[in-house]
Amino acid sequence: MQILDNPGREQWLQILQRPYVDNSAVLQSVQHILAAVKEKGDAALYGFAQQFDGVALDSLQVSAEEIAAAAGQLSEELKAAIVQAKKNIETFHARQLSTTEVVETMPGIHCWRRSVGIDKVGLYIPGGTAPLFSTVLMLAIPAKLAGCREVVLCTPCGKDGKVHPAVLFAAQQTGVSRIYKVGGAQAIAAMALGTESIPSVYKIFGPGNQYVTVAKQLVQMQGVAIDMPAGPSEVCVLADETANPAFISADLLSQAEHGPDSQVLLVTTAAGLLDQVNAELASQLERLPRKDFAAKALDNSKAVVLANLEDAVAMVNAYAAEHLIICTDKADEVGDRITNAGSVFIGNYSPESAGDYASGTNHTLPTNAFARAYSGVSVDSFVKKITYQKLSVEGLQAIAPTVVAMAEAEGLEAHAEAVRVRVRH
Amino acid sequence: MQILDNPGREQWLQILQRPYVDNSAVLQSVQHILAAVKEKGDAALYGFAQQFDGVALDSLQVSAEEIAAAAGQLSEELKAAIVQAKKNIETFHARQLSTTEVVETMPGIHCWRRSVGIDKVGLYIPGGTAPLFSTVLMLAIPAKLAGCREVVLCTPCGKDGKVHPAVLFAAQQTGVSRIYKVGGAQAIAAMALGTESIPSVYKIFGPGNQYVTVAKQLVQMQGVAIDMPAGPSEVCVLADETANPAFISADLLSQAEHGPDSQVLLVTTAAGLLDQVNAELASQLERLPRKDFAAKALDNSKAVVLANLEDAVAMVNAYAAEHLIICTDKADEVGDRITNAGSVFIGNYSPESAGDYASGTNHTLPTNAFARAYSGVSVDSFVKKITYQKLSVEGLQAIAPTVVAMAEAEGLEAHAEAVRVRVRH
Repeated sequence: MQILDNPGREQWLQILQRPYVDNSAVLQSVQHILAAVKEKGDAALYGFAQQFDGVALDSLQVSAEEIAAAAGQLSEELKAAIVQAKKNIETFHARQLSTTEVVETMPGIHCWRRSVGIDKVGLYIPGGTAPLFSTVLMLAIPAKLAGCREVVLCTPCGKDGKVHPAVLFAAQQTGVSRIYKVGGAQAIAAMALGTESIPSVYKIFGPGNQYVTVAKQLVQMQGVAIDMPAGPSEVCVLADETANPAFISADLLSQAEHGPDSQVLLVTTAAGLLDQVNAELASQLERLPRKDFAAKALDNSKAVVLANLEDAVAMVNAYAAEHLIICTDKADEVGDRITNAGSVFIGNYSPESAGDYASGTNHTLPTNAFARAYSGVSVDSFVKKITYQKLSVEGLQAIAPTVVAMAEAEGLEAHAEAVRVRVRH
Repeated sequence: MQILDNPGREQWLQILQRPYVDNSAVLQSVQHILAAVKEKGDAALYGFAQQFDGVALDSLQVSAEEIAAAAGQLSEELKAAIVQAKKNIETFHARQLSTTEVVETMPGIHCWRRSVGIDKVGLYIPGGTAPLFSTVLMLAIPAKLAGCREVVLCTPCGKDGKVHPAVLFAAQQTGVSRIYKVGGAQAIAAMALGTESIPSVYKIFGPGNQYVTVAKQLVQMQGVAIDMPAGPSEVCVLADETANPAFISADLLSQAEHGPDSQVLLVTTAAGLLDQVNAELASQLERLPRKDFAAKALDNSKAVVLANLEDAVAMVNAYAAEHLIICTDKADEVGDRITNAGSVFIGNYSPESAGDYASGTNHTLPTNAFARAYSGVSVDSFVKKITYQKLSVEGLQAIAPTVVAMAEAEGLEAHAEAVRVRVRH
């Protein structure tokens, strides 16, 4: 890790800058994929499965038999873990459901909002180095709680034509309607445009590589909603002298192992901590199967020493981390002063991995400083809130002069007339 | 209006299709404007004011004197109307503020969400044929309720270098921090990128022409959040034989007068109503100052006759209108069956113009069928919800086997280790 000792505020912007990810190189390929799916539908998807995944599929959809067989292919321990995680995630997200509250803004004028699940949503689960069944839980649970009728899931299969049984088990446990063996940009295209097999959806969720990211951006331009913009995963640890160096190192490594582009930032008021953290990093790294990934990510990472907790809080707010772990005995108080973060982990016994899997919070979070304007995924992400109003004759009469005066001042006479015609009646 | 009598379901998709708006023609101009603002900052903005608005500005920012003078330039009646509208909008939106609720998902595991206002937001108010001071209320009121610290407003000035006093008065009443005389794509560029005078913001709100729309799309691709995708304004009226033809006509015209690209759709189970509606449209149209706009919009509009209320509800849900007015004596019951709409107006005395100005609901709403996945603007649009968790030692011990099993199954050993190192401790 690069150590920065008490940098001046004028340097912060540069220190906190994320590496620039240039997606332009894949833009043309993705446009080609979108056009092919639009033109040829399923046939394009079978072709891409052959081309990119090296598999000749008989059917795009995972069969009921394959789903039923998944449970038998998993250890009892893992199934119990998935069921426990599901329970906690459900408990937390169920509290995000909102009830309709009618507000009488003036006598005879009633206004309210009603939450309605987005009818059709699509979840993308990447393949690659790890079977992300935890992301199935994080997306499908709020979707079902929100009342989404159709929850479609796309994920690439292996060269054997199979989807990992843990992904299937998680999908089956959480009520996903249909699962398709389609990966990459072509999965996003299929869910946005629809094909013979795959229904088009109104909103697409989930992580992915550059191709998936660009495909999501392009379909968003065409009116399909997406969960949030994407960027490499990241953690920021804020630690003072009361923190435990072994815990900090473990947290930094658990982010670093995601991949060489993972971002890790340590902000501390305790310069003395750094030697111990470095020693722990070196010894813990040795034991990791993904140590090459983690070592590369650490090489690009920074530890910043600041004079006091005020400055440290200001810096982590400026950084707007996806994950922020606060390791100080003042963690509660510091937590209340956080204004930009995806998810905050309070105190020494709240590692990021608890939230990544099972504590109940969502792990689909804004990276790349998007936490300044975006929230993580929640039940909110799967509903629309429709506003309603109902005016009585008396309510309309009471508000008529206000509406008429404003409409006339905006030069919109018919708006005024829509009130007058009713009041005259 | 074009009348469609009992069209088959296979025709619905085509009937309900919005006109295609091709923004590609302005893309290059907008890219040029963005690049100029990035490179030259304020100087570019002064240049564009000269070029597009025909005005040589001394200062981009509206002065305190100009703001203070605005109240004196408005009628008492209009000021009272703005104040009343503000009160109702505040009353409704204040109920959207959420309180933090701590959920104990397992013993010793506490999770919660905390709403934090987006620190810096930008509001865009178009110039053009009407001074949209009502949109100032609709955006600035939830921004302030949400706790946004910096609320910047950009709007083009007239050839006299002045901003309409009603816009200034509404901005002053709602606590807008700074107002700039900048319009069009260059305003979006300035708020996204920042200039010497104008701070960069994290999220940009507000309506606009094609240039503004494309500029918002482009800055969104670069990571600045926007309120929602844009399209021409629209109303759908669902009416049965209990509806009043004069009221329906007034509502259709109040949408049609927005401009020739406004969308108007009447869905009815009462074919007998159409003659009366047409007669009312003809006579009411004659009295409108913007009758040319309205007549053009009506030419492109459709009235659909359906056999029963079931089909009518299905059609309006398929259309996903920005504004949906339900004129039947069963309006309450029908309202509960609406799944796609921006804002719903229940019964004969709830015209769209009440919600456009003053009843309390927001008028910044999803057009173009975006209501299938998007909500209108609310306090939610101006906050991030940060998740938090705090585990006790016992809580972590209880969840440790779950996290470890899942992390190992995903091949993420360091995630498991971040739990184990703490449990061992």
